[in-house]
Amino acid sequence: MAPTVKNPRVTFASEVPEGCFPIVGEHLVFDNSRIIDLESVPLNGGFLTQALLLSPEPYMRERMRPLTAQSYSTPMVVGAPVVGTCLVKVLRSEKEGVDVGDLMYGMSHWEAYTVQPYVEGRRKYRPEDWAPGTFDMDSLVLTTVPDPKGAFPLTRYCNILGTPGMSGYVSFEKFAQAKAGETIFVSAGASGVGSMVIQLAKAKGMKVIASAGSDSKVEYMRSLGCDLPFNYKKTHYQEFLSQNGPVNLFYDNVGGEAFAAGLEATAPFSRVIVCGMISEYNVPIDKRFGIQNTELIFKRRLTINGFLLPDLIPEFGAKFFQDVPVMLSEGKLRSQEVVYKGIEKAAQALVDTLTSGSDVSGGKLVVEMQGKTMGSSA
Amino acid sequence: MAPTVKNPRVTFASEVPEGCFPIVGEHLVFDNSRIIDLESVPLNGGFLTQALLLSPEPYMRERMRPLTAQSYSTPMVVGAPVVGTCLVKVLRSEKEGVDVGDLMYGMSHWEAYTVQPYVEGRRKYRPEDWAPGTFDMDSLVLTTVPDPKGAFPLTRYCNILGTPGMSGYVSFEKFAQAKAGETIFVSAGASGVGSMVIQLAKAKGMKVIASAGSDSKVEYMRSLGCDLPFNYKKTHYQEFLSQNGPVNLFYDNVGGEAFAAGLEATAPFSRVIVCGMISEYNVPIDKRFGIQNTELIFKRRLTINGFLLPDLIPEFGAKFFQDVPVMLSEGKLRSQEVVYKGIEKAAQALVDTLTSGSDVSGGKLVVEMQGKTMGSSA
Repeated sequence: MAPTVKNPRVTFASEVPEGCFPIVGEHLVFDNSRIIDLESVPLNGGFLTQALLLSPEPYMRERMRPLTAQSYSTPMVVGAPVVGTCLVKVLRSEKEGVDVGDLMYGMSHWEAYTVQPYVEGRRKYRPEDWAPGTFDMDSLVLTTVPDPKGAFPLTRYCNILGTPGMSGYVSFEKFAQAKAGETIFVSAGASGVGSMVIQLAKAKGMKVIASAGSDSKVEYMRSLGCDLPFNYKKTHYQEFLSQNGPVNLFYDNVGGEAFAAGLEATAPFSRVIVCGMISEYNVPIDKRFGIQNTELIFKRRLTINGFLLPDLIPEFGAKFFQDVPVMLSEGKLRSQEVVYKGIEKAAQALVDTLTSGSDVSGGKLVVEMQGKTMGSSA
Repeated sequence: MAPTVKNPRVTFASEVPEGCFPIVGEHLVFDNSRIIDLESVPLNGGFLTQALLLSPEPYMRERMRPLTAQSYSTPMVVGAPVVGTCLVKVLRSEKEGVDVGDLMYGMSHWEAYTVQPYVEGRRKYRPEDWAPGTFDMDSLVLTTVPDPKGAFPLTRYCNILGTPGMSGYVSFEKFAQAKAGETIFVSAGASGVGSMVIQLAKAKGMKVIASAGSDSKVEYMRSLGCDLPFNYKKTHYQEFLSQNGPVNLFYDNVGGEAFAAGLEATAPFSRVIVCGMISEYNVPIDKRFGIQNTELIFKRRLTINGFLLPDLIPEFGAKFFQDVPVMLSEGKLRSQEVVYKGIEKAAQALVDTLTSGSDVSGGKLVVEMQGKTMGSSA
């Protein structure tokens, strides 16, 4: 009989109702009952990967909605493993171009070992079955990435080198029209997206205001070069911005009160980029913060752009992969991750990402699959 | 002693508090006590005009705010005549290029006879005295316009050929990215702006949905070519749009509930143009409709543009003056005005423009200074 090992996973056990946070043990269930035979599991022309890092990210909440609710992305499959961006290592391969030892980044199962391309939890996607504009999340397939060999920690792939950093980068390139001497306000500036935007704005010579929900995150933002970081739990958005604005560019990751205050702080002809609105994802629609100053859109002659990362990858993805790893190696970009050790903590890491208010030190949450520290905090 | 005539005017008598409608007799006062000597009043190198038509428009509310409140425009001067766009006729002139009998359109006093350039009610404007981006309303000076000689009624100058039509035209040119076969929703479709946008959209081959607040306005919109006009007082915005959307372009003049419903009805990658939000101008800020679905901005990847007319005149003004009068003469554009006769009705016409809900027949309100009908209703 072939040797087997445990293959722990996080299962998406049930749909999360509209307006609620996911609950560990109810919607997200850690399952350590499975085993896998690494040597003889059939690959069927594919390859076997070992997960190194899991990346909990806010967009995942939308994928946990009931199947019947329409949105911009395909929902996850109940009963299958959570699917999210991961950094994995190839253990065996029958696929041309994928070699043992390769590092790969992209969508994969939140489990220790997976035969790729994964089948469980992958939706059969035909565009005609979905509302126009629905994005097939499973299409963000695993792609080989360089082994940094110590030039930077692997955890960067789940932060500034992954979808968060890429989201900040491509949207800034596309919409920011950044000018030296102008002012930007970045909400959730300690997030993966926010930390990238702060640094890109500083590189353009902008004055940077940024908000986060803890003092340690404020210090993290300051370490990234942010001129005026603030803790919105101590100083209201509106109060801080009215004293330190106006802003010419407003990059929003938060929505609600932050969005209203950001609009209020705009100078005429400002640009607003909406990447996400994490404050609203787990609030019932009729309980969400009502924005009462939208008339500033014409009074200030604003241009507001919303985007999803996949839309902009064709135009700016190559530039990202060309520039950002080099900038990181050369120390021109900084990034920090908070590492949760062990897949048994992955469900909580996702909930913590969504609550966003836990007073952790600044940095993007990352789940490390094994005991040894693969990331760092600098 | 030289012969004199009455020179009735509407005075901006006091500032309108935030969140209130102006009140006739309190904020807007008809004053018939003045006289003028048309033959000998000194022109000082300027010219004397007789007002033919006054054009009440929603933007005027913003100019009636307290002087201390910052906004996008210079406020009117308390105690001076109301200043608004007017069609006037030149009676005497000492100014090169301005001839007796000329028709002129632009900012002028709401009074029968005025020596131009008007002095009363004109703010000494130095940019450094105002917040950046504040528009000097007095800079929209009187400009000679062609006498249509019966090709179309003069009232068109206060509607499709004036600031309302121009606002619709230049913003549609700049931001609409109109494509045949796509769908547009225009709120306040029976307004001067809305009626222009409906017709431009039809000319591009779009399906047009438009809202207004009375059945007669619905019929007016239908007569302009609107495919799906509706009365929002009978069918809620959200209800009508969910049945007849989605829309690829949303042109908003109303704000509040209409804005929320318009956002909700967008297809992915839609454009939203915000021209005005008349539903909110006379509502206290904390009583305004709270928009709870702004996360659609990123989920639908929307592009939202607000504008003020003066911003776009340099780019598209010449094209407007070249194309639109010809289109009107050739019957390719339609327009309808509701004429209030006599300056003593001007204050009420402005209030009616702001309430926007009076069940008048469709068409832009215009005040005619003399008894005979200069406009028509077709």
